[in-house]
Amino acid sequence: MSYEAYFQERLARLKDEGNYRVFTDLMRQRGAFPKATRFKESETGDVTVWCSNDYLGMGQHPAVLAAMHDALDTCGAGAGGTRNISGTTHHHVLLEQELADLHGKEAALLFTSGYVSNWAALGTLASEIPGCIVFSDSLNHASMIEGIRHSRAQKVIWKHNDLADLEMKLAAAPADAPKLIAFESVYSMDGDIAPIAEICDLADRYGAMTYLDEVHAVGMYGPRGGGIAEQEGLMHRLTVIEGTLGKAFGVVGGYIAASAALCDFVRSFASGFIFTTALPPAVAAGAAASVRHLKASASERRLQHQRVAELRARLDEIGIPHIKNPSHIIPVMVGDPVKCKYISDLLLDRFGIYIQPINYPTVPKGTERLRITPSPVHSAEDIDRLVSALAELWSACQLARRPMAAQ
Amino acid sequence: MSYEAYFQERLARLKDEGNYRVFTDLMRQRGAFPKATRFKESETGDVTVWCSNDYLGMGQHPAVLAAMHDALDTCGAGAGGTRNISGTTHHHVLLEQELADLHGKEAALLFTSGYVSNWAALGTLASEIPGCIVFSDSLNHASMIEGIRHSRAQKVIWKHNDLADLEMKLAAAPADAPKLIAFESVYSMDGDIAPIAEICDLADRYGAMTYLDEVHAVGMYGPRGGGIAEQEGLMHRLTVIEGTLGKAFGVVGGYIAASAALCDFVRSFASGFIFTTALPPAVAAGAAASVRHLKASASERRLQHQRVAELRARLDEIGIPHIKNPSHIIPVMVGDPVKCKYISDLLLDRFGIYIQPINYPTVPKGTERLRITPSPVHSAEDIDRLVSALAELWSACQLARRPMAAQ
Repeated sequence: MSYEAYFQERLARLKDEGNYRVFTDLMRQRGAFPKATRFKESETGDVTVWCSNDYLGMGQHPAVLAAMHDALDTCGAGAGGTRNISGTTHHHVLLEQELADLHGKEAALLFTSGYVSNWAALGTLASEIPGCIVFSDSLNHASMIEGIRHSRAQKVIWKHNDLADLEMKLAAAPADAPKLIAFESVYSMDGDIAPIAEICDLADRYGAMTYLDEVHAVGMYGPRGGGIAEQEGLMHRLTVIEGTLGKAFGVVGGYIAASAALCDFVRSFASGFIFTTALPPAVAAGAAASVRHLKASASERRLQHQRVAELRARLDEIGIPHIKNPSHIIPVMVGDPVKCKYISDLLLDRFGIYIQPINYPTVPKGTERLRITPSPVHSAEDIDRLVSALAELWSACQLARRPMAAQ
Repeated sequence: MSYEAYFQERLARLKDEGNYRVFTDLMRQRGAFPKATRFKESETGDVTVWCSNDYLGMGQHPAVLAAMHDALDTCGAGAGGTRNISGTTHHHVLLEQELADLHGKEAALLFTSGYVSNWAALGTLASEIPGCIVFSDSLNHASMIEGIRHSRAQKVIWKHNDLADLEMKLAAAPADAPKLIAFESVYSMDGDIAPIAEICDLADRYGAMTYLDEVHAVGMYGPRGGGIAEQEGLMHRLTVIEGTLGKAFGVVGGYIAASAALCDFVRSFASGFIFTTALPPAVAAGAAASVRHLKASASERRLQHQRVAELRARLDEIGIPHIKNPSHIIPVMVGDPVKCKYISDLLLDRFGIYIQPINYPTVPKGTERLRITPSPVHSAEDIDRLVSALAELWSACQLARRPMAAQ
């Protein structure tokens, strides 16, 4: 078999289908973000980023950067080992305490990424609890799906955010089987939010653990940035809260917060936790500074919510369709993969506005979209420029407008 | 079912078996590493780390730290997104070029860790090439095992470094089936080295791809730090070379280097690459500086090899048994889990010397060991103190000495 030919053939097929990804080469401008420098061939130009998951601009916050500079100066670059073999630094210990406190849990456990935290924690819980059945929301993130798949536990997929379907499936399972309900609070692509309290009610009724992914919510919701579960006063009802340090907290890494025994259990049995180099101390220090800051300061959250409301209102004024949802994510619907990519390219090349097109398989065919994430660091002028560019392109592409944005 | 009781019961069992891990809480001292501050309850004390995988001390190299400080100042903390959605910064692009060049390959692809690079690359190759059979060395790292497991491809385990066994198993497989031989160059726990050339010969004969994990070799072997394959002039014969930025390069992250089509294939299909936040730009910048430095400078490698030879000779003088191997890893054999932990605890508490004990299941029962990794930043005085502490404890524990180290 010619392996090279096979790789090339599969890549050609991706290109034919319009699913081949080309990465935009950027240099974020610290202090001026969402401004960034774009590299294309030998040229560079300024762009405004409208699709970052650095949702609050914490990636350039002075307190975060000062903590990272300081840790580099005092501890150096890498951790130098796994958590067990010389890689646990005091910054990791302090960050885990900060995260446990954020979610009102006994303990927290750090992973190298949010992806790894879902994959390793779900994979370990589902495989190490004999007979465990995982009830997984149909729109769960790839990292959760892969973790459950890896566990080889029985998996039951329930319809997205559908309580009746979840209850039917819980009721159909053996009453004495261990059960784990895995779901997210804010879903990334539609920005809709799960009925957490009602899911916890069902978990109580059927004796299930709950595993809530709050990666698109931590830092941004709740009085201290503890996420949707904090906002709704539900943190104590969840068995596991999973979060990321790479989105609103502006750095990188993932974690779970839960009981001391559960965290210790995952710590002791998860291959993806045990056999990997720990995060750099500077990353842990920066993330801890970010979490600490957002526990005390609500101004970033308030300004983000304002910017989101402003942009939604402006889109409504000119009839640009977007999904109404209770979160900070604004999915502007194009509904055609070629036009979606085309608009994104023109925004970038002609207007210096960067919004990555979201096409199949990330979202269903026919729901291709521009996923916009307004943040406190976007100015009123940034919004003006975005709205007028979208208006122009909407006309040029002959896309439908709505009197008011519907679903 | 009481989940909490179950977790506690499993943890109690680990403790009974002596397999419960307690992490040592450290703060590396930048500029003075291998010195570190140890935190224990409310006390702190100075220790010398002898078990770090920051093999060359690059985690405190001025060029690495300057690059990281600079990237923090210019780009900020995190990447802010996946590689596809605003997370590709120019530092990632430059680092991938640097790594492709290091290994003489067309391309390289970055992952958030070495664990993820093995898991995602092997998992994707083995699952996306229909009918692929993976031939896996019996001592491969957990990340490789989990990646192969995740792929659900057929797996054939061959005896560690045993060419006859590998050939027998290759010959027994259908001639036209796609094949992938997965192995490491330097094995972490014994420090032995694979017969790479002969494995490549077998791969040619049986039409197999080769996947070589060089995480314990990159930076340290070969004229430019390209690893054992570079040292032996074999890089061009390997299909994939996998490496880490978290050991000799002193930062964090993993990568593969291979043909452009293979890297693009993994980039396009690997869930663990696609759906995760990119490494912080400062991490990419620091790693690139480290790789660049070690391409040009051989002094760290030379000094490391000297230190390793010195410590081996000193251990031989006093009859402390250690596995003879051609690498920089010195496994001092204790052969008893309780004594191994006891010696490690005394080294730490009484002598301020930190060497994590390596017990089952990381190594087979009866081969419990202290895994020592001398580096250019260990002084002659550090070696004196280590050797005299080991001599004292060897007598106190009534462990056997050898006239000369055997094996």
